[in-house]
Amino acid sequence: MLSNHLQNGVETAKLLWSRLPNTEDEDGEGGETDDGDGVLRSVGFDGVESLDYEVIENYAYRQEQARRGRLYVWYYVGVKWFFALLIGIGTGLAAVLINISVENFAGWKYSWTFRIIQKSYVAGFILYTMINLALVFSSVYIITQFAPAAAGSGIPEIKGYLNGIDTRGILLFRTLVGKIFGSIGSVGGGLALGKEGPLVHIGACIASLLGQGGSTKYHLSTRWLQIFKSDRDRRDLVTCGCAAGVAAAFRAPVGGVLFALEEVTSWWRSQLMWRVFFTSAVVAVVVRTAMGWCKNELCGHFGSGGFIIWDLSDGQEDYSFAELLPMAIIGVIGGLLGALFNQLTLYITHWRRNYLHKKGNRVKIIEACIISVITSVISFGLPLFRKCSPCPDTDSGIECPRPPGMYGNYVNFFCTKDHEYNDLATIFFNTQDDAIRNLFSAKTIHEYSAQSLLTFLVMFYSLAVVTFGTAVPAGQFVPGIMIGSTYGRLVGMFVVRLYKKMNIEEGTYALLGAASFLGGSMRMTVSLCVIMVEITNNLKLLPLIMLVLLISKAVGDAFNEGLYEEQARLKGIPLLESRPKNLMRKMTAKEACGNQKVTYFSRVMKVADVANMLRTNNHNGFPVLDQSRSGETMVIGLILRSHLLVLLQSKADFQHSPLAVDMRSQSLPIRHSVSDFVKPVSSKGLSINDIHLSSDDLEMYIDLAPFVNPSPYVVPEDMSLTKVYNLFRQLGLRHVFVVPRASRVIGMITRKDLLFEDNEDSGPVELQSTSVRGRHRGGSRVTTRNPDIGSPLLNGLLD
Amino acid sequence: MLSNHLQNGVETAKLLWSRLPNTEDEDGEGGETDDGDGVLRSVGFDGVESLDYEVIENYAYRQEQARRGRLYVWYYVGVKWFFALLIGIGTGLAAVLINISVENFAGWKYSWTFRIIQKSYVAGFILYTMINLALVFSSVYIITQFAPAAAGSGIPEIKGYLNGIDTRGILLFRTLVGKIFGSIGSVGGGLALGKEGPLVHIGACIASLLGQGGSTKYHLSTRWLQIFKSDRDRRDLVTCGCAAGVAAAFRAPVGGVLFALEEVTSWWRSQLMWRVFFTSAVVAVVVRTAMGWCKNELCGHFGSGGFIIWDLSDGQEDYSFAELLPMAIIGVIGGLLGALFNQLTLYITHWRRNYLHKKGNRVKIIEACIISVITSVISFGLPLFRKCSPCPDTDSGIECPRPPGMYGNYVNFFCTKDHEYNDLATIFFNTQDDAIRNLFSAKTIHEYSAQSLLTFLVMFYSLAVVTFGTAVPAGQFVPGIMIGSTYGRLVGMFVVRLYKKMNIEEGTYALLGAASFLGGSMRMTVSLCVIMVEITNNLKLLPLIMLVLLISKAVGDAFNEGLYEEQARLKGIPLLESRPKNLMRKMTAKEACGNQKVTYFSRVMKVADVANMLRTNNHNGFPVLDQSRSGETMVIGLILRSHLLVLLQSKADFQHSPLAVDMRSQSLPIRHSVSDFVKPVSSKGLSINDIHLSSDDLEMYIDLAPFVNPSPYVVPEDMSLTKVYNLFRQLGLRHVFVVPRASRVIGMITRKDLLFEDNEDSGPVELQSTSVRGRHRGGSRVTTRNPDIGSPLLNGLLD
Repeated sequence: MLSNHLQNGVETAKLLWSRLPNTEDEDGEGGETDDGDGVLRSVGFDGVESLDYEVIENYAYRQEQARRGRLYVWYYVGVKWFFALLIGIGTGLAAVLINISVENFAGWKYSWTFRIIQKSYVAGFILYTMINLALVFSSVYIITQFAPAAAGSGIPEIKGYLNGIDTRGILLFRTLVGKIFGSIGSVGGGLALGKEGPLVHIGACIASLLGQGGSTKYHLSTRWLQIFKSDRDRRDLVTCGCAAGVAAAFRAPVGGVLFALEEVTSWWRSQLMWRVFFTSAVVAVVVRTAMGWCKNELCGHFGSGGFIIWDLSDGQEDYSFAELLPMAIIGVIGGLLGALFNQLTLYITHWRRNYLHKKGNRVKIIEACIISVITSVISFGLPLFRKCSPCPDTDSGIECPRPPGMYGNYVNFFCTKDHEYNDLATIFFNTQDDAIRNLFSAKTIHEYSAQSLLTFLVMFYSLAVVTFGTAVPAGQFVPGIMIGSTYGRLVGMFVVRLYKKMNIEEGTYALLGAASFLGGSMRMTVSLCVIMVEITNNLKLLPLIMLVLLISKAVGDAFNEGLYEEQARLKGIPLLESRPKNLMRKMTAKEACGNQKVTYFSRVMKVADVANMLRTNNHNGFPVLDQSRSGETMVIGLILRSHLLVLLQSKADFQHSPLAVDMRSQSLPIRHSVSDFVKPVSSKGLSINDIHLSSDDLEMYIDLAPFVNPSPYVVPEDMSLTKVYNLFRQLGLRHVFVVPRASRVIGMITRKDLLFEDNEDSGPVELQSTSVRGRHRGGSRVTTRNPDIGSPLLNGLLD
Repeated sequence: MLSNHLQNGVETAKLLWSRLPNTEDEDGEGGETDDGDGVLRSVGFDGVESLDYEVIENYAYRQEQARRGRLYVWYYVGVKWFFALLIGIGTGLAAVLINISVENFAGWKYSWTFRIIQKSYVAGFILYTMINLALVFSSVYIITQFAPAAAGSGIPEIKGYLNGIDTRGILLFRTLVGKIFGSIGSVGGGLALGKEGPLVHIGACIASLLGQGGSTKYHLSTRWLQIFKSDRDRRDLVTCGCAAGVAAAFRAPVGGVLFALEEVTSWWRSQLMWRVFFTSAVVAVVVRTAMGWCKNELCGHFGSGGFIIWDLSDGQEDYSFAELLPMAIIGVIGGLLGALFNQLTLYITHWRRNYLHKKGNRVKIIEACIISVITSVISFGLPLFRKCSPCPDTDSGIECPRPPGMYGNYVNFFCTKDHEYNDLATIFFNTQDDAIRNLFSAKTIHEYSAQSLLTFLVMFYSLAVVTFGTAVPAGQFVPGIMIGSTYGRLVGMFVVRLYKKMNIEEGTYALLGAASFLGGSMRMTVSLCVIMVEITNNLKLLPLIMLVLLISKAVGDAFNEGLYEEQARLKGIPLLESRPKNLMRKMTAKEACGNQKVTYFSRVMKVADVANMLRTNNHNGFPVLDQSRSGETMVIGLILRSHLLVLLQSKADFQHSPLAVDMRSQSLPIRHSVSDFVKPVSSKGLSINDIHLSSDDLEMYIDLAPFVNPSPYVVPEDMSLTKVYNLFRQLGLRHVFVVPRASRVIGMITRKDLLFEDNEDSGPVELQSTSVRGRHRGGSRVTTRNPDIGSPLLNGLLD
């Protein structure tokens, strides 16, 4: 039916791309170049780079792997697991570094301040403000001058990366450094933000840098580790990094896995879970070891505080049905306040991006410094106006007031008598971790007055909203927990007063409040639940946390989207959501393409024409057509702009004749290695304007057949767009061809056709033969239609 | 390009199927009839029914929903959540019932036996054996006579159901009843099996019965709840049921969610997680309430035992690095023993299926009874040969020997002196839950001798292997924990002896052993880890459990597949694994179809021809072709066998003329309701032989255009089979058309084309207009190519 000429072209591409021997690793993951691997990325739209996962089967890539053979496969798998180990260790150490630094800075700050306020409150205030200012300034300076991509939490960007959008600079080495030191400054400086979101970003950066074998710019790379050529492998590493970040931030390894699963990744493979799980376990061990080492007072102020584990295991043991109502109310409050938080931060960030931050870095620095001063004034000043309360008489084993310079409840601040404490200072004039610990603490009923809690809630909520979006690394977990636990404790106080039962702990309600606010703002369910349980170390509260989260998420969803989705949208990161929009039901595939003119390439093109077409449009993929001798046209595949650019730059494949290369000839040389086609992370890649072609070059021809992806996914023109969307989203595609309705059906594939006996899939033994004995395999294929083509071709390529 | 005639046919189908107004529920789940809903199933191969998820857009279904309007949508969403609630309550109550019954039967058994052995050991032995035999007989009798599908754990079958294979009878009401009462007998009768797997099955049954509105056979159904017409909704419910089962079995709500996610489902949507989570939370509350109620001695022997929570929260607090080596060894042992267990059970089950169980029910009953007697003999007899040990002197607060008839460590059995106990009886002559509690128990160093543990390990392992596959409901969790904790405790004993440190608890090693065996046998990671943590209530051991699981799964994977996969394969349930086989890399879509002749249908067919084609082949889906006036053929869609059968049976669409129906005419009546097209759960559905057509009928014609799925997914003939597999697996398809390579590309869809502004997707408001104002919508579509067709057609259908 097809003429020989055309058949040759199609066959050629197919043989080159689909049939070349490939490597397969043992753990059932990477190396599956046929189905999602070998992914390159290209310049996209809207100033971000799209990095969808297209199935392109890069012959050079496979070839390189093929040549290295079986040993290489084992090496490849080994490196994958080794990297998982390294990500775990690296993220764990980064978390330890940040925690030790923050705890020490904060510790010195508070101990000096407390020492000075024994003499003068004014001097104490000045010292306190100056230290905070210095720390915040260091943070904002690093961010603005050195690593602008490290501002904010980074989670929306990472989410975008894993969804297929590459925000520039997000995974660079300098971003990593900026994030680590910026976090130390911003958190140590007492701003209303946390270090947990940044840790997720840090984990992702470490993973990504490992994946490309180090930082190329700073010459920290090694060729030995540069084996992850495909975006799929890198994406898997980044997923591991995210899980490691959460595991390190909260010391919640299971929570980390679930966070990566529920919140971050877009395309989850259950095989990956296994490696993510391992990474989280490594983090847990590293952090635990470091904590053990620090127990011997080797880490300064770190040890007693640091690493948010708010142990509630000795808290409330039981709950009665009557308590479910106030708990439900907490859920509703959480949903409302969370949704409001998302909305307010959205407006403020919008305003910042469009007006304030356009005025340059100096404005950003000034802004952060002003907010730092305001935060200092409020946190130091407000407790001054609060009347001290006498210490409780009950013997709960908790010292009151706490000794100066130590951590604990019952802070003596501006109190006239000895046995008094300032309840507002207990939560406000403290590191956030300690404040939360105090709010969660059991056996401290009536420690706080409703007035203090309410004051703190309003002030801190406002501070958190204002601080969000400044040019410093900022997480929303800890501020969220602060806000939530404050109103939770408030509700708890009313419950204690109302129900008059002594086995109700206000701390339990504070925990539920924290869960509800996070649920209402971030809209996570399972992962958040597990994280809350892991950080409080009390499994008995699990059903209660579940209940509260269910309510708060439901309430929040009635108003707006989750925090990360809102922020991603604002940052112009177009996330493909997991379900298609209603609108798509009424559209067909053809309508979605609109009036877009399709730019075709012929199989053999003049170089001048190729360059011209690349210059005159900005598409990233082009269908390649070939013509049979009978004049029938036929789509032979998809070629990517990035590949064309590589071909134009290398010039190696230019030829003088406008005839198609006879792929059967023995002389076909290997002109490209995989590294030619791989673009480094977070860079813009080649542009057509970077390529200089002489007039001689322009007169030459190029045969595209060996470089096309011979079978991209296609949809018929009148397919409903929701179906197209599902195809696109589920398989992580970048290009789908819309083609006319078929005139006939060659066959039908059902489940039966996809089930093979297991003995045909022999794993490691098979591997060797497919990867190094190309010629032999090629000749002995059972089902090839043109065995006479296959053998010499592979011969020519591999020998 | 297309003639009007053909265009009309294609348009007609498209309009009917893709454009009809549809309902959309608020929680972002069901009702998405365009993309995975409206799934019917049909008779498959290998004696099981395949139930793949094909996108068919049933016009009657949509129509029915459309007519009911907005209120219906709210009702639909409400029922979904209500069902999640009911599943939680139902599964929780079933778990409570089983636990109370088992604990009471076992409690009576042991207290009577202990009372009698004060006088005569022979009489005690006879009583013990007879009670066990009676219980096991009741179980096997129920299974063989009443509910054969309730044998075994049911997890492989449920996995198959959610993967797309419907094993007959697996979700019937009688299976549910058989499973509940069978479990009570088999577990109460002391066999080496557990009640956890069956509970998962019970949860799934409850969910499925709710989904079809009750049991039709027993007239327990109500029309009000029969709203889940699509397999997608039912599948979601069954997923909820599985999670509820695990949550109830282990009191591990998070573990339940993860189990459903990791082990059971094949197509997971993150929206579903939300509802599964809710169901698990309900179970937790129900079980907790029941337990609270039982605390007041209202439930007989239940209360002290029952519901496997083996609290280790007062166990080992810390671990040193030197302990990681023995823990890794436990992991390796677990992997080896687990893989061996899978292999042995595979052989034995294979033998049973092919020889023993073919001889009829009587053989099954005799087999179960023999195994029961052997179990009784071993568990009673072996401890008799064991010399009693003197009670330890240390004051650990644990009574030694325990008072007769109570639960606890240090069982006095065949001991001559007062202050002695029999260590073998402590684990062997006990319910499994209590035995595990004793093995896990802390502060009982040197309770067991290595000899006793080794004896128990060998005997119980053999019993578990032999018992697996008998015709009783049987779970493998608890036996696995038994086996694992025995060798774990053994290793722990050596560690205690070797390291001579007193803060090592043998119970911790027992727990790790249990985790390792389950990991080595079932090959779950995250869910198992969370379940182990939830049942032992000790988060501190999490990293250790992770480590052990990683090792044991890796070791096990080197030998064979997981237990459930092996069993599913043996039972002829062809699960589509998540990754394609190596073999597929070397095949194209066309080759996968083989020499299979495609059976076409024309748009208008003679009824006789349709019946004949259905009779002469057993395909489940057929391409429908139409011919334009210019003679060009064109595929207008896919029609399912099951739909054709419904059409043939109803005869309503038969017509006298061989001309296509003019879909524009106003008189087109609504002849079908959705219930016609929905097949009840677990029944074989219509067969062509059930349909009686008169000779008049046979002479008539039928126009298939309104009933085809107009745009099934297509792949080009030379696409690599791995890509086809991914398409098939990721989207959960049943049929894929293999078509010739396209001759041209109409357009290209990229991410950009799939991103719409949010304001176009206005949710609830939109809903109303799409669901009840069909005519208006039809007329106001912006992008329809033939608006003049759209409006009157919808008019005719909806008015």
